[in-house]
Amino acid sequence: MAILRGNAVVGQSGGPTAAINATLAGVIKGALTEKSGAIETLYGMRNGVQGLLTEDLVDLSAMFTKDSAFDEDKFELLKQTPAAALGSCRKKLPDPEKDPAFFDGLIEIFKRHNIRYFFYIGGNDSMDTVAKLTKYLATSDYEMRCVGVPKTIDNDLVGTDHTPGFGSAAKYIAATMQEIIRDCSVYKLPAVTIVEIMGRDAGWLTASAALTGRICGVKPDYVYLPERIFDADAFIEDVKRALETKFAVVIAVSEGVRFADGRYVGEGTQSGVADVFGHKYLAGTGKALEQMVKEKVGCKVRSVELNICQRCASHIASGTDIEESVRTGMTAAASAVNGATGVMVCAVRSEGDYSIDFETKEIASIANAIKTVPESYINEAGNDITDACIDYILPLIQGEVATKYEMGLPVHLTI
Amino acid sequence: MAILRGNAVVGQSGGPTAAINATLAGVIKGALTEKSGAIETLYGMRNGVQGLLTEDLVDLSAMFTKDSAFDEDKFELLKQTPAAALGSCRKKLPDPEKDPAFFDGLIEIFKRHNIRYFFYIGGNDSMDTVAKLTKYLATSDYEMRCVGVPKTIDNDLVGTDHTPGFGSAAKYIAATMQEIIRDCSVYKLPAVTIVEIMGRDAGWLTASAALTGRICGVKPDYVYLPERIFDADAFIEDVKRALETKFAVVIAVSEGVRFADGRYVGEGTQSGVADVFGHKYLAGTGKALEQMVKEKVGCKVRSVELNICQRCASHIASGTDIEESVRTGMTAAASAVNGATGVMVCAVRSEGDYSIDFETKEIASIANAIKTVPESYINEAGNDITDACIDYILPLIQGEVATKYEMGLPVHLTI
Repeated sequence: MAILRGNAVVGQSGGPTAAINATLAGVIKGALTEKSGAIETLYGMRNGVQGLLTEDLVDLSAMFTKDSAFDEDKFELLKQTPAAALGSCRKKLPDPEKDPAFFDGLIEIFKRHNIRYFFYIGGNDSMDTVAKLTKYLATSDYEMRCVGVPKTIDNDLVGTDHTPGFGSAAKYIAATMQEIIRDCSVYKLPAVTIVEIMGRDAGWLTASAALTGRICGVKPDYVYLPERIFDADAFIEDVKRALETKFAVVIAVSEGVRFADGRYVGEGTQSGVADVFGHKYLAGTGKALEQMVKEKVGCKVRSVELNICQRCASHIASGTDIEESVRTGMTAAASAVNGATGVMVCAVRSEGDYSIDFETKEIASIANAIKTVPESYINEAGNDITDACIDYILPLIQGEVATKYEMGLPVHLTI
Repeated sequence: MAILRGNAVVGQSGGPTAAINATLAGVIKGALTEKSGAIETLYGMRNGVQGLLTEDLVDLSAMFTKDSAFDEDKFELLKQTPAAALGSCRKKLPDPEKDPAFFDGLIEIFKRHNIRYFFYIGGNDSMDTVAKLTKYLATSDYEMRCVGVPKTIDNDLVGTDHTPGFGSAAKYIAATMQEIIRDCSVYKLPAVTIVEIMGRDAGWLTASAALTGRICGVKPDYVYLPERIFDADAFIEDVKRALETKFAVVIAVSEGVRFADGRYVGEGTQSGVADVFGHKYLAGTGKALEQMVKEKVGCKVRSVELNICQRCASHIASGTDIEESVRTGMTAAASAVNGATGVMVCAVRSEGDYSIDFETKEIASIANAIKTVPESYINEAGNDITDACIDYILPLIQGEVATKYEMGLPVHLTI
């Protein structure tokens, strides 16, 4: 295949993670150190396609070159920086068949900057962007290659063993659960602590809360994933049973659990909470369960929402995740130069001892699908995970990052 | 002074912190390596004085001795373990003058175990326990020495430059604020994020959120401490003003801020939220401000409650805090052997470059007083801290701990 020479553009989209910049660092390193020299200049789009449309581009080749060589120091700092350094967006592209003019406009922009490579780091919606752009390019005579680069703490992309960003979020959650269980166990008083964890449609992050059982012997007493219907009566029975043998009961629950009728537990309608304006009060799942325990059990109860720290706590990122995120980005650059387009970079796990290889898969089969936690990873009662689930997640949180600190805090890179 | 020979007992009390076990490790090391041999056996009371009353004691001398020497490995693990390893309680002792029988009972227990040294690690209430016990001992012929060992993330004890545990909580808060600000700044959309921080009576922890400004240039736009009356109108004006020049506005607020009439902002009465049973819904300060912004500003708004992670996130403890916590515990053991009683170990800061010496002060003057953030540490508008405040806190978060990990998580020690 002839070498396609020209410039490249990379963007980040969707919710930030602790590892999305490590993936960006991988794309930059892959593009700047690629042997054939096919990629002349790598641009970054600010705020994803939103910045592409306004031609708000930053010259990453210049920024990451120092004394005519790749700037390894900046590379290391970008790897340990949380959130999307290029900025993000949540823009959904139109259907190419319904709005070809939109894509004609995009191609004019690509032509103006001689952009021949398009890398887009993101989750489901971002893969949809890559799929649509690829689809349109197939009908155009402008030669350009588009590669999707996965990221999401939710681990809900199909086609790949796991997603960059998930391992770091899982490590943060497991480490924090271990600390919270210690914290809650100091008093000789019955007390229930409910920890609400992200993941509206898939329970991967909530499942990670139970890793501690394998590692250090302490674990949440129950784990409720959105893959199972939430039964309030069974939950209260679970809590009461646990309180019979111990003081501190700790529960991990997904923000996305629903009742049998489809309502989210966190909708707050259960207790009819509303403010003076009649606005329904979205209490959150943890708060809703806290109220249930208060009313039906009556002991001390508290809820903790791990909130956005789950996706931005780069100070305790997984070494495995950060290294794989870099490799994912580098694979994207290499694959595109070698001719790949309309694909996403996917992780393939080896049999036996854990190791990961990367390959590319057709993006059309990946975009807009959701990978949930399989039945075999959840116990029969629906209140815990199985050993098979721990076997799957545990390798992803291994290893620590040698974070650079200055004046007491981790150093971040601003692009 | 004659050497007082006998056994010693140490307990932990009040809310757990990331450094209270480092202080315990210091007491253990101090007692077990003390040259005169005055302390024969060191016991730990489980769940503070609650365990003392039931004689639920653990032999720490045996546990921390290996091959006839002090077990440095266990010492290191205890230092990096969050929450109170001996368990805690919130028991308040009676007044010795009103209930001398209670103290007679206590002294019988001390006699039974030949306990001559009493070390109590805790905050205000724990210092009250030490003060009462000392007061009673003065009227008794049983010779025993009582030393209070400070800990509290709130930094609200008088008599000492700062409290063990505060530096680690401050470092966690500053590092997390830095990550949250990055996370919230990725979209080009007006959005307000409110971060609720612990400290009901003193704003030290909330002030720590603003350290990032000095370190990395990004900082919360406003910081509201409980030392100032919270003015809802001024707050909304602050938010609107900030949104004129930037998209992502981030606010740090103490859980303890109150309106001019004395009501906590987090009481939730402002919006009249109540559930179907008529229970007033305690939304929390962050949630209350979130509602205010939603109603009066109308942009995207989210609140984040850092919650108990502030006091148990030992994985990002301050190296300075952990080292000083150990020294605090060691000083307690040495001071008692040297004759001190009825005192608390206090930190004294040097002039010029930061360094700390320890001395003991009469506990009666310390117990039951609260050290709040002084006026000179808060700006005139009451929505930020001053340089003097940063100068005071910044040294306390310096240095990182070389945490030992196994299978991806920090290793904790169970006593």
